[in-house]
Amino acid sequence: MSKKVAIIGTGLIGTSIGMALKKSLGDKLELVGHDRDPERSRQAVQMGAFHKSEVNLLRTIEDADVVILAVPLGAMPSIMKDAYDSFSTNCVVTDTGSTKAQVVKWAEELLPKHVAFVAAHPMAGREISGPEGAKVDLFAGATYCICPTVTTKRDALDVVVGLVESVGAKPLFIDAYEHDSYVSFVSHLPIIIASALISSTNKSEGWREISRLASSGYKDTSRLASGDPVMNTDVCMLNKEHISARIDDYITELKNWKTLINGDGVELEKQFTRVWEARERVISGADMTQETRPFEKIPSATDYLMGTVATRKLNEALDKWTEAKAAKNKKRS
Amino acid sequence: MSKKVAIIGTGLIGTSIGMALKKSLGDKLELVGHDRDPERSRQAVQMGAFHKSEVNLLRTIEDADVVILAVPLGAMPSIMKDAYDSFSTNCVVTDTGSTKAQVVKWAEELLPKHVAFVAAHPMAGREISGPEGAKVDLFAGATYCICPTVTTKRDALDVVVGLVESVGAKPLFIDAYEHDSYVSFVSHLPIIIASALISSTNKSEGWREISRLASSGYKDTSRLASGDPVMNTDVCMLNKEHISARIDDYITELKNWKTLINGDGVELEKQFTRVWEARERVISGADMTQETRPFEKIPSATDYLMGTVATRKLNEALDKWTEAKAAKNKKRS
Repeated sequence: MSKKVAIIGTGLIGTSIGMALKKSLGDKLELVGHDRDPERSRQAVQMGAFHKSEVNLLRTIEDADVVILAVPLGAMPSIMKDAYDSFSTNCVVTDTGSTKAQVVKWAEELLPKHVAFVAAHPMAGREISGPEGAKVDLFAGATYCICPTVTTKRDALDVVVGLVESVGAKPLFIDAYEHDSYVSFVSHLPIIIASALISSTNKSEGWREISRLASSGYKDTSRLASGDPVMNTDVCMLNKEHISARIDDYITELKNWKTLINGDGVELEKQFTRVWEARERVISGADMTQETRPFEKIPSATDYLMGTVATRKLNEALDKWTEAKAAKNKKRS
Repeated sequence: MSKKVAIIGTGLIGTSIGMALKKSLGDKLELVGHDRDPERSRQAVQMGAFHKSEVNLLRTIEDADVVILAVPLGAMPSIMKDAYDSFSTNCVVTDTGSTKAQVVKWAEELLPKHVAFVAAHPMAGREISGPEGAKVDLFAGATYCICPTVTTKRDALDVVVGLVESVGAKPLFIDAYEHDSYVSFVSHLPIIIASALISSTNKSEGWREISRLASSGYKDTSRLASGDPVMNTDVCMLNKEHISARIDDYITELKNWKTLINGDGVELEKQFTRVWEARERVISGADMTQETRPFEKIPSATDYLMGTVATRKLNEALDKWTEAKAAKNKKRS
């Protein structure tokens, strides 16, 4: 019998997950999409993302083996509350929210105890929101954060890692608090930078003339300002401490650049060279940690509470998990 | 007899201009490319950008009807000096530099009086520098700034507007000082924003872990940090007053965003909505001035000295020029 996967929220992310799962596992799954706006879930079905759409939230969740919450962060607690009685026993629930500490907290407080929740976050997006922005390969090669806690069930983790791999992404185990810190650097600060570029330049006298000179550089640097305003607001509200710290650091850095610009150019050129090289390393992935350590034991509660150690331990667990799976598959064949 | 067009500097811009001119006017022109690095001009010839390359700067410029200086700003004065005796009489010289006030000054001081200089700047680019980044359609639909002065010869302006249209770009007449102010908003501030994003995040402890979460948002926002370090330094050195003012405004704006992020979210959502709409207007071109006024007279020296009026007058002149050309063509056919 095929497993029922219910995706709540058929926007950019939910619809792209549906498309990717249908492509890789379509015959083994019953993919059902629900959206607060039924027109959007119908559109997602037409795009081939789901076997069917369902207008009723509770019916979508009933008898689902897996529920993926792909809704804006602000909508998450009310959905968890509303659907409390509808989750089937041993249902695996995951989400795609851009911050994780608060989501983990909501899940612990609001979901029924017979549900296995695994917080997650795909590191992929586009400025075109809604199903119309969805792409079957949106997650191809992307990092997909998975944030287990001490109470996360191993079987549920197994299911979510499987889903992540099925959409073509690379699972990364990461502590929820660390996740929120990390994304403030690489996702949330860029959103503010892009938005402030627009608001800073747009208000200038003569903008109608000035904007004629805006080219790909201005457009790329400001691209994230075209993200969904509600989702961006949710993200900032749930990660304000980290984002505020990033803005402070960034302002300090801008002041350094201004000093260099007002110098003789020698240090400025060195600095431009350094950032050129630094960006190359990010793009090529050379900056990423390649360390893998021998797996010793399944991470304990203490490990999880040890800050930076947590992520490493979690990834050691993932390595072990992958090895074990490979060994099992080898044995079978 | 075909006209000789010499392009000095066969990097991204020079090679792309060569490719576009060869496509649109190839049989009417003799396109010759020169680069300080002969390997780069040979590569540009292989890419079909030029009829031939020439290793000697002076021979490249000798008997050229048009010379396009597509070199970094810092290299421009020495080329003007070195080639002083090589420019043919009535040679039209133009450039592609990212700042214009200083270039106009250099041209007035350093070029022989029998040369007709027209400063210009195509609003297009890529982060891949060198001939390998060149594309035949790099300028398709792009704004191409032309900065005449009171001494600019009408015939030379005619030639440069013709070149701009031949590469598929849209000519925009703009005062050189205004140009430098405008590009500080839409080109140079974004370069600093992108570079500071890299330098600010890259220095953080744990960057090797954090960078695994960097996705398209981080990469797009930082794209301009991959621009040529020498060219970026030149630009900052020649436009430091405008750029410094933009950085100050931008820091003020970031502080406003931080305040909103630490509020209840209501004003923040409104602000995210405003920038979403503002970026839409830029992308769609709705922000651009659409005003066209009846042409009255050829702009006078006074007009040029009148600050913001200058650009409008210049564009009225361009409208007139376009109308006159269209009428002439109609008459012919």
